[in-house]
Amino acid sequence: MSEARNADGAVNLADKLATFSERWSPRVVAQMNDVQFKLVKMQGDFVWHSHEETDEVFLVVKGEMEIGLRDRDVVLREGEMFVIPRGVEHITRAREECHALIVEPAGVVNTGDAGGDLTARNDVWA
Amino acid sequence: MSEARNADGAVNLADKLATFSERWSPRVVAQMNDVQFKLVKMQGDFVWHSHEETDEVFLVVKGEMEIGLRDRDVVLREGEMFVIPRGVEHITRAREECHALIVEPAGVVNTGDAGGDLTARNDVWA
Repeated sequence: MSEARNADGAVNLADKLATFSERWSPRVVAQMNDVQFKLVKMQGDFVWHSHEETDEVFLVVKGEMEIGLRDRDVVLREGEMFVIPRGVEHITRAREECHALIVEPAGVVNTGDAGGDLTARNDVWA
Repeated sequence: MSEARNADGAVNLADKLATFSERWSPRVVAQMNDVQFKLVKMQGDFVWHSHEETDEVFLVVKGEMEIGLRDRDVVLREGEMFVIPRGVEHITRAREECHALIVEPAGVVNTGDAGGDLTARNDVWA
């Protein structure tokens, strides 16, 4: 984990974002207790899914995204965050590429209960 | 908690920062499971302390801060984050006012084991 950080331990989000281009492929950049901070690049529509065991946070670092819920859509722009409660079905979407910081317990799979082709390998550090 | 959010549930960090001016007085803006996200305004020197029970994250939203550790200082600018491991003595400092997002379990007291005048009331929502 230490090599994933700057020499002094600071994590620069822009620097970490510059290390990968794959979309829907979260990269861990920090861990606090059992909670991981993951950067993700998104464009297009993800897949409807839910996480039965945990809430999940999205904080937009660059661009604009939408979190679709069954009863409404939540638009998030840079500097805005949203907590998806555990068990709530959602889909993430971005018209143009959007970068976000995901905060959730280690071990959470990106596609939740849905699985499928967009399921990313877990615990990959930037 | 719901009234602390925008109508659609999105949390705009700049809007939340505009609701208070007190320094060293963290305001909760979101909670994921047992983890709270708190905005804080800092200027000057805080107090040396540690949290025996948990790691703690600082993510700078605006300005520049320093996290003093016993063996070095870590400078954090906008878009940079740092994980202070549990039990590690630290002090936060900011020459000019700096705004940061703290991520840590609910219930953590800002002055940790040190106590004193800078101890803020806990669980105050913006």
